[in-house]
Amino acid sequence: MNVNGTPYRTIWLKPDDSKTVQIIDQRNLPHEFNIEDIQSVESMAQAVQEMHVRGAGLIGAAAGYGMYLAALEASKAPSFQEALATAYETLKATRPTAVNLVWALDRQLEAIGGASSTEAKIDIARTTAQEIADEDAEFCRRIGEHGLKIIREIANRKPGEPINILTHCNAGWLAFVDNGSATAPIYAAHDAGLPVHVYVDETRPRNQGARLTAWELGQHGVPHTLITDNVGGHLMQHGLVDFVLTGTDRTAVTGDVANKIGTYLKALAAKDNDVPFYVALPSSTFDWEIQDGVHDIPIEQRGGEEVTFAQGLCDGQVKRVQLSPESSPTVNYAFDVTPARLVTGLITERGICQANEESIRELFPEK
Amino acid sequence: MNVNGTPYRTIWLKPDDSKTVQIIDQRNLPHEFNIEDIQSVESMAQAVQEMHVRGAGLIGAAAGYGMYLAALEASKAPSFQEALATAYETLKATRPTAVNLVWALDRQLEAIGGASSTEAKIDIARTTAQEIADEDAEFCRRIGEHGLKIIREIANRKPGEPINILTHCNAGWLAFVDNGSATAPIYAAHDAGLPVHVYVDETRPRNQGARLTAWELGQHGVPHTLITDNVGGHLMQHGLVDFVLTGTDRTAVTGDVANKIGTYLKALAAKDNDVPFYVALPSSTFDWEIQDGVHDIPIEQRGGEEVTFAQGLCDGQVKRVQLSPESSPTVNYAFDVTPARLVTGLITERGICQANEESIRELFPEK
Repeated sequence: MNVNGTPYRTIWLKPDDSKTVQIIDQRNLPHEFNIEDIQSVESMAQAVQEMHVRGAGLIGAAAGYGMYLAALEASKAPSFQEALATAYETLKATRPTAVNLVWALDRQLEAIGGASSTEAKIDIARTTAQEIADEDAEFCRRIGEHGLKIIREIANRKPGEPINILTHCNAGWLAFVDNGSATAPIYAAHDAGLPVHVYVDETRPRNQGARLTAWELGQHGVPHTLITDNVGGHLMQHGLVDFVLTGTDRTAVTGDVANKIGTYLKALAAKDNDVPFYVALPSSTFDWEIQDGVHDIPIEQRGGEEVTFAQGLCDGQVKRVQLSPESSPTVNYAFDVTPARLVTGLITERGICQANEESIRELFPEK
Repeated sequence: MNVNGTPYRTIWLKPDDSKTVQIIDQRNLPHEFNIEDIQSVESMAQAVQEMHVRGAGLIGAAAGYGMYLAALEASKAPSFQEALATAYETLKATRPTAVNLVWALDRQLEAIGGASSTEAKIDIARTTAQEIADEDAEFCRRIGEHGLKIIREIANRKPGEPINILTHCNAGWLAFVDNGSATAPIYAAHDAGLPVHVYVDETRPRNQGARLTAWELGQHGVPHTLITDNVGGHLMQHGLVDFVLTGTDRTAVTGDVANKIGTYLKALAAKDNDVPFYVALPSSTFDWEIQDGVHDIPIEQRGGEEVTFAQGLCDGQVKRVQLSPESSPTVNYAFDVTPARLVTGLITERGICQANEESIRELFPEK
């Protein structure tokens, strides 16, 4: 998507230097737009762990490119196999909840394993990383096409009036390689001339909504209103939201959805007010093993300083302010799980299905 | 309650200068503890409007003292009656949701109206302001006694284990004159040696949980954990909350509860997970006229800068950082309404009742 009029992806191989991966370092957005060079597995792991890059699809793409860098490094190690296995574990340990991470790592491991020479392994690792990134962008584009139907239906019911969509966190193009999952139908509708308006949850503690979703919607010209995470229930009580649309970091085969902490609260409010609650996802986000998402999806806990501090612009610089008393302890769960019973539908690259195993497997019979 | 070992109320007449009201200016807590002198109706209105003081009970007490200052000013005006009426309107316009404000103003108007001489009017205004403040503190103390029974029951069910209470915003002593509403049972239980532990919602956008509740619990030595507003649902899903306990800014006679924005979302999560949801309130918070809280309680909208900025300590100073893109619009509803069907019980100064008109009127038959 466009940044100041120039099209970008979130991750790519540096032109004229295929041993360097480039990413948009998202940590200081919207205040600073920085491109970062990544030239080692260690750096990529750090970029994922410390959330220079984040979001379901982008974590997968970063893992894919990370394994390409791993193949480059392994080619100089005593044992290619051992070095690759170590890199795999290093990358895997960065974020526990996002299933795309392991999915991309495994896909690379299999692809690289199929090649015979070291040179071929490096080649296939690069090709596979590119494929993962291209697929991600393409799948998000298709999610946009399918989700657009839901928005069109609402538009037909109230012609000329704005279609109000509430979203949580950033399931935008910044969370993927391009287009985004939850934002894809929104961009598609906006580009098709439908009057969409987005309520953007700020999404504490890291404020991905306030920092990233608001920024990327603004860059694309989509009307939006920033709200605190507390507001959505009130909006839905008063008929101000047509539907809720979020992403997911891991989706149980039964339709339980692990997404940014607080998603579950919005799903409850949607249910209580008969507001449809949709989740948009590329199928790489499915966990085909897990039946009980609430109890079996591991939930990452992050450092307390994300809660006790807020980051923003102060006197022209990005600074952090301490919000709470120094002596107050915190816990910082990064995700929660929304049970399938609260989910109206899943918007995937193959179409829309219900949040239950039968409907999901009907769309993905090969799994 | 104690601040660094010294007992304080949130508002009081200055010793040796009965024409000055003193308040704790809560805006820079927990980083700065400032006492402010208030010597005019205008200053008091500003202090309420700009939230130097805030919280259901304290707004009422501030209105009471404001009317005392009004009587002092009116005694020098051409028409006492007109000056008092103007002051009444000025104070009333400061915060639209808190019912205690109008309740205290009306109580003063009636009391002052009953006195004959100007001197007597000033005297009765001072006495009434003191009475409102003393009653507030005493009612909160009684709320603590009644709420303690709920905590004791839980303690008896799991002896030795911590009793986990989730609270939203600040319904602590800083929101009243002393003791607090939601915190009163917590302080009572802690002082009685029961192992209470409080999950404190940070409560965006103004962070009254992170700034005030965490601070006052810490000052009193009550174990607590600060969380973002998004976390409560996850905690309740995993059995980590024994009950939710909040305050209220206005309670419909039917039991609908207007409290800080986001309360409704916690009530939904409590219901979904069979966690009791209690609301603590002095009866001054009841609105005896309103039947449908969700539609008829006016909800204050505040400035967008509360959403786009966060305030905290940076390099030893209290500063504000801008969180979001400058061009992103916001809405900032300060309260939402939790329907009575989600409320397990109301803890009042007269005891605990159900959140319905019959049960409420049984406890307050004179209304």
